[in-house]
Amino acid sequence: MPWGDRLNFTGAHILSINQFQRQDVERVFAVADQMRPYALRKKVTRVLEGAILGNMFFEASTRTRVSFGSAFNLLGGEVRETAGFESSALVKGESLQDTARVLSGFSDVICMRHPQEGSVADFASASRVPVMNGGDGANEHPTQALLDLYTIRSELEAKGRTIDGLKIAMIGDLRHGRTVHSLSKLLSVYDNIEVVLVSPRELCLPESIIDSMRSAGVVVRESHELTGGISDVDIVYSTRIQEERFSSKEEADLYRGKFRLNQAIYTEFCQPNTVIMHPLPRDSRADANELDIDLDSNPNLAIFRQTDNGVLVRMALFALVLDVAHLVDDYACDVRWYNSRQS
Amino acid sequence: MPWGDRLNFTGAHILSINQFQRQDVERVFAVADQMRPYALRKKVTRVLEGAILGNMFFEASTRTRVSFGSAFNLLGGEVRETAGFESSALVKGESLQDTARVLSGFSDVICMRHPQEGSVADFASASRVPVMNGGDGANEHPTQALLDLYTIRSELEAKGRTIDGLKIAMIGDLRHGRTVHSLSKLLSVYDNIEVVLVSPRELCLPESIIDSMRSAGVVVRESHELTGGISDVDIVYSTRIQEERFSSKEEADLYRGKFRLNQAIYTEFCQPNTVIMHPLPRDSRADANELDIDLDSNPNLAIFRQTDNGVLVRMALFALVLDVAHLVDDYACDVRWYNSRQS
Amino acid sequence: MPWGDRLNFTGAHILSINQFQRQDVERVFAVADQMRPYALRKKVTRVLEGAILGNMFFEASTRTRVSFGSAFNLLGGEVRETAGFESSALVKGESLQDTARVLSGFSDVICMRHPQEGSVADFASASRVPVMNGGDGANEHPTQALLDLYTIRSELEAKGRTIDGLKIAMIGDLRHGRTVHSLSKLLSVYDNIEVVLVSPRELCLPESIIDSMRSAGVVVRESHELTGGISDVDIVYSTRIQEERFSSKEEADLYRGKFRLNQAIYTEFCQPNTVIMHPLPRDSRADANELDIDLDSNPNLAIFRQTDNGVLVRMALFALVLDVAHLVDDYACDVRWYNSRQS
Repeated sequence: MPWGDRLNFTGAHILSINQFQRQDVERVFAVADQMRPYALRKKVTRVLEGAILGNMFFEASTRTRVSFGSAFNLLGGEVRETAGFESSALVKGESLQDTARVLSGFSDVICMRHPQEGSVADFASASRVPVMNGGDGANEHPTQALLDLYTIRSELEAKGRTIDGLKIAMIGDLRHGRTVHSLSKLLSVYDNIEVVLVSPRELCLPESIIDSMRSAGVVVRESHELTGGISDVDIVYSTRIQEERFSSKEEADLYRGKFRLNQAIYTEFCQPNTVIMHPLPRDSRADANELDIDLDSNPNLAIFRQTDNGVLVRMALFALVLDVAHLVDDYACDVRWYNSRQS
Repeated sequence: MPWGDRLNFTGAHILSINQFQRQDVERVFAVADQMRPYALRKKVTRVLEGAILGNMFFEASTRTRVSFGSAFNLLGGEVRETAGFESSALVKGESLQDTARVLSGFSDVICMRHPQEGSVADFASASRVPVMNGGDGANEHPTQALLDLYTIRSELEAKGRTIDGLKIAMIGDLRHGRTVHSLSKLLSVYDNIEVVLVSPRELCLPESIIDSMRSAGVVVRESHELTGGISDVDIVYSTRIQEERFSSKEEADLYRGKFRLNQAIYTEFCQPNTVIMHPLPRDSRADANELDIDLDSNPNLAIFRQTDNGVLVRMALFALVLDVAHLVDDYACDVRWYNSRQS
Repeated sequence: MPWGDRLNFTGAHILSINQFQRQDVERVFAVADQMRPYALRKKVTRVLEGAILGNMFFEASTRTRVSFGSAFNLLGGEVRETAGFESSALVKGESLQDTARVLSGFSDVICMRHPQEGSVADFASASRVPVMNGGDGANEHPTQALLDLYTIRSELEAKGRTIDGLKIAMIGDLRHGRTVHSLSKLLSVYDNIEVVLVSPRELCLPESIIDSMRSAGVVVRESHELTGGISDVDIVYSTRIQEERFSSKEEADLYRGKFRLNQAIYTEFCQPNTVIMHPLPRDSRADANELDIDLDSNPNLAIFRQTDNGVLVRMALFALVLDVAHLVDDYACDVRWYNSRQS
């Protein structure tokens, strides 16, 4: 990853984590920190009053869609949206570029999710307003990778640590999980990172990503046993075994038992205060259960702090792309209503 | 129903009408009265500026969803929403509690409708913000019961009466109608109530509800003829014969004819100025037609005042739960646009 | 078309272009001009702060729905909406009039699209707030006709011309295209209009519309060849060959080749600076391709200015119907965020 100029956020499309160098990531995180009082409802800002987000989800995704929309509302803006693939113009043969030119006339910034790889970049090339990638098929979901790394930073910071020097175990179906791919790339811009990859042999992280990490100085170790992999790390990042990728449920079942983490395993094998993460949703059905609910009372379970951080990171990206990060506090006022989060 | 402490609305989940004692109901109604100038567009308030409602309808319902959303907008807040069961995280094995923890990070209060009985309470148990039940299957729909009773109060008030002493006929499929069940419970907190239940024998109100009403001092009379039941009451509360519950359309047809109310029957059998209510939608197809459209010019037809009152009651609940009822007028200003409702 | 009193916009339903006389059209366009700085994000207005649009699309249409919603947001108002035919009250036998009475209690103005001809007028007859027709089946889509004519006016104005004296070619499936029908009617209120109709014989404009235009003084010429039709006009208005109306794809294919416009044909046959319009979406699949993408760099391609103008025209209609056109600037302030449109 080249170490060139800083990313100029103002008016930029946010399409891939490949756009981000270390200083850019840190810029996003500094602004995300600044957003915390607004997300916690200690203050309200109307800095984006009158601005419109086009929240164009051409594939259903309640949580990501609402997270983007709420982040924009929290900055004072309005949201127009599409949820799922309507029998829309695309089926009448309209190109994505035409759709982009039309929809970009209706808003100041667009978030887009679309099932097809590369579709969001294609769309962005014809948009007259900045476009954020909310997930384009198996390709990219950059805000997820940023919120994961922001969570790692927050969890370590609470222990007086920084991301440099991190040891992290990534667990599960590392072949198919796009969040793990993106996070691996992002971690490569930090120093002294050690990654333990815990997966069945058939589901290991693609060679090209491992090679990139090693070239960037990351120490990568592979393991096919959960207990060995999680024994000496700061973070356990668990993911879903993606049953739908296997030829049969039976085949998927071969792997699942090995990678279940519960409180007993945690207590026996993990260092004290090892942080547990997961991109969610976690599969809580009995035959999956990759993170047992008996971990819910473990204060190191960071999975819900992770999703909360998604709002901060998305607010930060909006503030940077629309160039209002320095103005957010100028348009702040107090919250008038009952705030559940402070009680 | 115990007569204990008042319901502390601030930050409370609104899940069931069992939470409400008489004084609580009256608190809601007093605040609903205060909301009238805003709903009638004589004034606008921005008391909830910056607040976000998560309007999570995991079952389609245009009118209830839009009613909640508009009520929140009328207080100055923003709405993020889901309309219908998207192919969402729930189908990937996520528990309702996980969904609640995630979604409650995106808003200040949540309304939820879900087809499964008990689901909203389950969801609320893990939510970090107050949750309002917008209908959980055949179980509860508390805001409907409150708006029904608020309508009864308004209609009687116009005649110098109060709810105490009310005579009401409930008509139709009393076995399956959840609105009738909830309203029956709510009426029990008032004095000298007389209820006439008009239904086919096979569709009568469940014994347990009748017993509860009688224990609370309500006089309950049963009838299987429309004309006898409606002859000496203040309110006729008609409901839909729910064809979908019968083994055949033919079986449902056996009952339908008896319970049609039209202007001729009204004139012949009802006391002058008997109020007509219905939870809507009314089935206006020829073979159903429980409330004939020839009643539309009858000023005692309260069915559209009823749905309008839904906005007032939902505004009141939001104002109470978020503890801004006393601030609404402080953030009021005049309406600048043409107001159809005053013309 | 009678030449009577001016349309009183305040509180009016906007259902059909038959409501508009020349002076009414010009009133809409004058207000649309006034909206331009807001649509271009040079200014923000909160004139409709607190007002609610019920954006009721009972048929999916991302672009028209979002265009109406954004137009309302740009005036400072809130939007509640329905996107597509939910399993709603209509399927339980509720009449459109009942739906209208209910939904009109939740908003200050309603936009409605519905697949059934005449449905929006039916709905409006029972609504307590103004209703705008967003398309009722094959019948009317008045805002599309107005934005088309507004675009014609803007494009001609840039050349020092007015609509009077316009020569326009309308191309494609003129039998089925409702936009062409409506635009033809609207043009009839102007002077010295000449229309060239270019279509296959089987797809020509209905006789009744041609007769009306001729009665109003429009010169109408018919052609079945593209190249002859476009050679001496100010505007080429291309439309989609609506494959779904034919008995077979093969039959549709008979016509398609003739009506493709690309840069080579444009250069050879059109006058310099002939403006190209299209109601969108344009079908860019190889076998359709009525407007080739090699025209995208032609500055006379007005198709995206056309869709942008839709926002202006819809803002103008909202401002007129809610009687705030004279107040928009009084509630204006500066835009604080990065404005892609000015770069």
